[in-house]
Amino acid sequence: MPVSLFSSALYSGLFADEELVRLLSDASDVAHMVAFERALAVVQGRLGVIPAEAAEAIAAGLSDITIDPAALAAGTVSAGVPVPALVAELRRRVGGEAGSWLHWGATSQDVIDTAMVLQVKVAIGLLAAQLGKLIDTLQRQSERHAGRLLAGRTRSQIATPITLGYRIAQWAHPLIDTELALPELRRTALKIQFGGASGINSAIAPDGSPVSAALAKELDLQDSPSWHVNRTPVLALGAWLQQLGAGLAKMAGDLVLLGRSEISEVRSGSGGGSSTMPQKANPVQAEAILALQQISIAAQAGLAAAASPLEERDGARWPLEWQFLPQMLIATGAMLNHGLALAETLEPNDEKLAATLSDNPELMAEAASFLLTKHGVPRGDAKDLVAKAAASSEPFAEALAKSTDLGIDWKMDLDPASVLAPSREMAARIFAKRTAT
Amino acid sequence: MPVSLFSSALYSGLFADEELVRLLSDASDVAHMVAFERALAVVQGRLGVIPAEAAEAIAAGLSDITIDPAALAAGTVSAGVPVPALVAELRRRVGGEAGSWLHWGATSQDVIDTAMVLQVKVAIGLLAAQLGKLIDTLQRQSERHAGRLLAGRTRSQIATPITLGYRIAQWAHPLIDTELALPELRRTALKIQFGGASGINSAIAPDGSPVSAALAKELDLQDSPSWHVNRTPVLALGAWLQQLGAGLAKMAGDLVLLGRSEISEVRSGSGGGSSTMPQKANPVQAEAILALQQISIAAQAGLAAAASPLEERDGARWPLEWQFLPQMLIATGAMLNHGLALAETLEPNDEKLAATLSDNPELMAEAASFLLTKHGVPRGDAKDLVAKAAASSEPFAEALAKSTDLGIDWKMDLDPASVLAPSREMAARIFAKRTAT
Amino acid sequence: MPVSLFSSALYSGLFADEELVRLLSDASDVAHMVAFERALAVVQGRLGVIPAEAAEAIAAGLSDITIDPAALAAGTVSAGVPVPALVAELRRRVGGEAGSWLHWGATSQDVIDTAMVLQVKVAIGLLAAQLGKLIDTLQRQSERHAGRLLAGRTRSQIATPITLGYRIAQWAHPLIDTELALPELRRTALKIQFGGASGINSAIAPDGSPVSAALAKELDLQDSPSWHVNRTPVLALGAWLQQLGAGLAKMAGDLVLLGRSEISEVRSGSGGGSSTMPQKANPVQAEAILALQQISIAAQAGLAAAASPLEERDGARWPLEWQFLPQMLIATGAMLNHGLALAETLEPNDEKLAATLSDNPELMAEAASFLLTKHGVPRGDAKDLVAKAAASSEPFAEALAKSTDLGIDWKMDLDPASVLAPSREMAARIFAKRTAT
Amino acid sequence: MPVSLFSSALYSGLFADEELVRLLSDASDVAHMVAFERALAVVQGRLGVIPAEAAEAIAAGLSDITIDPAALAAGTVSAGVPVPALVAELRRRVGGEAGSWLHWGATSQDVIDTAMVLQVKVAIGLLAAQLGKLIDTLQRQSERHAGRLLAGRTRSQIATPITLGYRIAQWAHPLIDTELALPELRRTALKIQFGGASGINSAIAPDGSPVSAALAKELDLQDSPSWHVNRTPVLALGAWLQQLGAGLAKMAGDLVLLGRSEISEVRSGSGGGSSTMPQKANPVQAEAILALQQISIAAQAGLAAAASPLEERDGARWPLEWQFLPQMLIATGAMLNHGLALAETLEPNDEKLAATLSDNPELMAEAASFLLTKHGVPRGDAKDLVAKAAASSEPFAEALAKSTDLGIDWKMDLDPASVLAPSREMAARIFAKRTAT
Repeated sequence: MPVSLFSSALYSGLFADEELVRLLSDASDVAHMVAFERALAVVQGRLGVIPAEAAEAIAAGLSDITIDPAALAAGTVSAGVPVPALVAELRRRVGGEAGSWLHWGATSQDVIDTAMVLQVKVAIGLLAAQLGKLIDTLQRQSERHAGRLLAGRTRSQIATPITLGYRIAQWAHPLIDTELALPELRRTALKIQFGGASGINSAIAPDGSPVSAALAKELDLQDSPSWHVNRTPVLALGAWLQQLGAGLAKMAGDLVLLGRSEISEVRSGSGGGSSTMPQKANPVQAEAILALQQISIAAQAGLAAAASPLEERDGARWPLEWQFLPQMLIATGAMLNHGLALAETLEPNDEKLAATLSDNPELMAEAASFLLTKHGVPRGDAKDLVAKAAASSEPFAEALAKSTDLGIDWKMDLDPASVLAPSREMAARIFAKRTAT
Repeated sequence: MPVSLFSSALYSGLFADEELVRLLSDASDVAHMVAFERALAVVQGRLGVIPAEAAEAIAAGLSDITIDPAALAAGTVSAGVPVPALVAELRRRVGGEAGSWLHWGATSQDVIDTAMVLQVKVAIGLLAAQLGKLIDTLQRQSERHAGRLLAGRTRSQIATPITLGYRIAQWAHPLIDTELALPELRRTALKIQFGGASGINSAIAPDGSPVSAALAKELDLQDSPSWHVNRTPVLALGAWLQQLGAGLAKMAGDLVLLGRSEISEVRSGSGGGSSTMPQKANPVQAEAILALQQISIAAQAGLAAAASPLEERDGARWPLEWQFLPQMLIATGAMLNHGLALAETLEPNDEKLAATLSDNPELMAEAASFLLTKHGVPRGDAKDLVAKAAASSEPFAEALAKSTDLGIDWKMDLDPASVLAPSREMAARIFAKRTAT
Repeated sequence: MPVSLFSSALYSGLFADEELVRLLSDASDVAHMVAFERALAVVQGRLGVIPAEAAEAIAAGLSDITIDPAALAAGTVSAGVPVPALVAELRRRVGGEAGSWLHWGATSQDVIDTAMVLQVKVAIGLLAAQLGKLIDTLQRQSERHAGRLLAGRTRSQIATPITLGYRIAQWAHPLIDTELALPELRRTALKIQFGGASGINSAIAPDGSPVSAALAKELDLQDSPSWHVNRTPVLALGAWLQQLGAGLAKMAGDLVLLGRSEISEVRSGSGGGSSTMPQKANPVQAEAILALQQISIAAQAGLAAAASPLEERDGARWPLEWQFLPQMLIATGAMLNHGLALAETLEPNDEKLAATLSDNPELMAEAASFLLTKHGVPRGDAKDLVAKAAASSEPFAEALAKSTDLGIDWKMDLDPASVLAPSREMAARIFAKRTAT
Repeated sequence: MPVSLFSSALYSGLFADEELVRLLSDASDVAHMVAFERALAVVQGRLGVIPAEAAEAIAAGLSDITIDPAALAAGTVSAGVPVPALVAELRRRVGGEAGSWLHWGATSQDVIDTAMVLQVKVAIGLLAAQLGKLIDTLQRQSERHAGRLLAGRTRSQIATPITLGYRIAQWAHPLIDTELALPELRRTALKIQFGGASGINSAIAPDGSPVSAALAKELDLQDSPSWHVNRTPVLALGAWLQQLGAGLAKMAGDLVLLGRSEISEVRSGSGGGSSTMPQKANPVQAEAILALQQISIAAQAGLAAAASPLEERDGARWPLEWQFLPQMLIATGAMLNHGLALAETLEPNDEKLAATLSDNPELMAEAASFLLTKHGVPRGDAKDLVAKAAASSEPFAEALAKSTDLGIDWKMDLDPASVLAPSREMAARIFAKRTAT
């Protein structure tokens, strides 16, 4: 077992997204904090809240610098956050009097929350791009397989026929809803944090509001009243990631079933060798998605535990976000990568698809019962009659023909191909949501 | 221990919301399913999908009827859902040929999901009304106490001064964000479910789309492609309830602290007698909110486990929504009731509030250190100097005066009342979000 | 949706255990509290801690009484617990001076915790009996099907052959471990709670210890120092229920797969009709187990949130146990009932079992590769050679024969029946754990 | 935000245990897998299951080797587990024919599970040692402060007096229970895993059982039937860690309250500087414990999701253990470290302790009401009388004296020191559990 699947040289290739891991590295983490401090000085200098020369010295001194995260470790142990050690180090770098004006009116949480939001902004961009590509791919595959019949299954039993194209559209459905929620997410989650010690910018009153507004603009975030103990932005992001992961896991779960040895109707993904069984091709990528979604679900519960901080700032709940939000982001990134690979590579096995349909003619049972009712057989009688035919040892259509004399051409009327049109229509309604908005 | 806090005669008064309990009673549950079946027949009759006389007979037969839920129990055990037994009973009621056209083209999940959405719609209405009242109350209280100084606390330690009015505004902040998310929630969650056996309305093709649209209109819901295995609407509702509960628990947690015997700065709520200690006044309502929020967090994890159903419909995951969504709704309703009662009754103890401020003059330490820096003392030196003064046995202002000779009038410049304006401003920014949109 | 699946007339037949629901009814709940108060007076009278006549009057007055739970509702809302109202009512019933000596030296949590433990004791007895029956049944079925070959599946792919008897033994394995943990559970969880207001029995010092010991004996529980804020007993029970549920869900998950339309190798359970598809037989009982296990997992997280109470007693965390422990108990009871029904009714379909084996001769691939290595073919080469044979269009044994000339009688050496003995042996090792201890 | 608090150079000093991080490093992880393969060859050689020379060559070839984890990364991505790549690399190292006999009859899960158990064994040893030290320290402190009065608090309100010594004993109580559960944990969790492809050792039949027994002995683990899909050992470990963490979080939660600015009755731990407020001393270590316990709770839910694997092995659930078990172990290790530091450094503030008692004389209210009843005042009247005295503006004892004429010496009879003896006794009963077994 590794310290974390996401930091392990062994496992991160399968369970993590490389770009997100880089974005959340210690070095990048510190760099985003430095970006906050620099931007703060710049706008405070511009607004005359700190001396212009100090602002210039800070802006210059914090450009292109590299801070060794390990150098902040002892300070983090002592203070519970890296900010005091970081600020001390940055003051040392800037030197002279200017350093005094660094971090002016800010509190640790302003730095860490805004750095987090900046990281989140990049992460959402990466995820949104992959999500868009995945939906595109699923739409293409849905159209490509719109004429391919598939036995629909409900509650693990063969139900009525659909198409593979419609099944794929069902995978896209939650993903499209999640994509549609992106603007609202960006509006809710990408906010500047700037409140100072107890959230009211008292140390720099009455300059709090203008500094906050300018800082938001400088860092291309939304302006906001301080939200030290209003974690709605984090919860909203967690909820969005949760929805995205749920959609990906739906697809993965279906692909594991479709790729089972006994079913083998659709193959997808790569890999899957066994250490001892030569013939095996395990659904490694779909399994990884399913595992990652459970990681994400557990992480969301962790975020929920952090969402009701006490008083003006809460040191016991806050660190949970640093543990769980990265897990959700990285897991979602890796799920999307695998999802895209699965969507791109999925290949039906026509022989198997057809065999399931012909082996299970009773998947037209519902259609048969509706036909009977349209021909005047009461619904209950129709259902019984059809159930009896389905259970008989004779072919379904023949059993039906024998038990009725209503002049129905059972062979033709029970052709599964009748579902092609409604499958296509429902798939189209799903993808139309994307363009409707 | 009771079967459930929400169904217990002993405990439901404290932990449940009466109206929501009624909305989710078995009788109401069945009535909402009947409403679906009736509306379906009505619109199908109107569109000519079923015979008009059948539609009329169904509409008449299903008006003002009462179904004994217990009569459906055996059928539910057998089928896993009450719908087959319900449909059989409704056909019996309607009688004759018309009954055959009841539930035409629908599947169990269409009935149960739509009934759920109809219940949710009422529930959201109730919660939104209470939420609005609570924010109104908090705004009134925030304004009323805008001039009342309160020691701000960060990480459990006295930090810098704020006002009680600003603290109350902080409680409103996540609630306002949640209220602002209501339109998006209604758009996402309140959708008709109508897909038939495998989700493509194949049994009534090509009438699926028009029936769906008409049914949505009839029941005043959004139209939607079928979402049997796209549980985004449920997840979105769960996420919204989670955010609302997190906000309420933030307020409750703060009130428990403010009402502790040693602090006693703010009292709120009623009740709290002990079985053995005559003097006790336990914060029963705030505690109930905190407990209910944990119930809600656990329920959300349950919903997440249901969110990736397999294939066309999933019988193992689906029932989780019936267990967890009601828990979240009822818990949130009860939390809101307690929250409103606490907000309405909160009363500061001015003597205690003032004593905390005067006993802890070092809460002006940050202000002192900023003053020193403005007078040219480098930031690090200023911080040390102030920390030393705070730790000394002398009064803070005197210790500061002794250790510097910068001509600062420490007594005046360290008056906590300087935070009144920035507190008022930040509170105003928070409440302004409500009207901005 | 119902208030709770467990209290619903519609759903409780499927999702709840009737006896446990009765045990946890409000009336039973109150009766267990009364039993505590009565036993307390009895032993305190016996020890001379309260007047003997008072003890007698209380013992008489609290025999065979019925308290209407609804009459305690208002008191529960006010105090957060029903005990003050209950004690007042019991004093009224007992009347006169004797009532003053009722609840002597006890606190609400003593009453509620001990009542809970008494309920838990009965519940464990019921669950243990069902568990024993289930393991017996599985052992019988395992032996009955010890000669029936089944395709083993790993990571959703057909792997190497096993027997149905061994598969059934695997289901019993976690259940046997859970049964073996029963004595430790009883030792840990079934403890008297008696500590008084702050846990040290100060109100009746120095009589606390003897009263505690006598009370434990009277109620047939373990004696213990007060554990108001040491919730290990509850956590231990939750963990045990969790393990039991995990085992049952393993069996249920396998049965859903074995009963899928395309596999149909083993049928089990009853019920499963559809509202619209005449031929369906949904695995209602196995699905119910899977859903209930998720309810139990969420409940365990709720218990964990209650497990670190603050100070001498914690009113915000404590009620979580009343909500989540019943959920776990009732869910586990219902899971066991369904598990037993599934175990008793499971019937293999020999034709299907055999077809899977003959359709997938490559499940002997591992055996083939071991044979080759024993004949001197290096492991890597052997694995490649076998993988190639498995992928070829020819029958597996013929492909192998063609690609080697090592004098191996592939047909005979790759007979799946070679796994009968090791399957039987491993199953025997599993069941032997039960008697070993 | 970092990839993981446990792998971050910035944060791991505060949130991780160094030794456990080393134990769970990739290099150590691989080394434990190699140890399995080596031991397997050794015992198989000894038993004649593989050629003795091959066994010797493997034993020699796998001694003191170092495998670069990164070299196995691609293979892990492809296979979902590192074992196939590892075995290939080990065969390369061993060379010649001997390599063919490496991993003989084993499957990936045998390697990974046993490596995990070996790591867990070390981890439990480390944790148990720290736990023992912590309980020793708490016992010492409990005795040291056995004469120091502390206001007991229930439901956040001052209740009746106890001693600091008894409060400390309460912290030890769940920890002692957890220590007492260690032997059962070791019996349950530390088991060899050896079952081969489908768990029945079919590839090496009939040698499975003897190899398993010998391997268990070689690696100093319990022998066991294969438990690929019986995750009781993992669940039992998770439950034990959960109990341990719950106990530590109880202590931490209390210490945060005792160290609040307004209470300041007990100080503990080190660190806590603020980035902007010179006077602050945040309870960094107690906060870290509280955060880590939430991480552990979320991880346990993740383990529960892994606990019902499908069929013979389950690739989607299994990786969850690799993510969540390390989190729980590392978090618990760090919690123990902080707990020990807090226990060692805790220092009461006698002035503050005494002030709380004298400011709240009504904490003797229960005692007063018991006294009155002993003097013949009915319980209800006594409670009212005392509540009135507690609420009056006069000193409590005087108010009581005025309202009664029963000849009670209120001053003496309400001396909080009366709780010293029962506090000492209950603490002794708690610590006696440790030696009783």
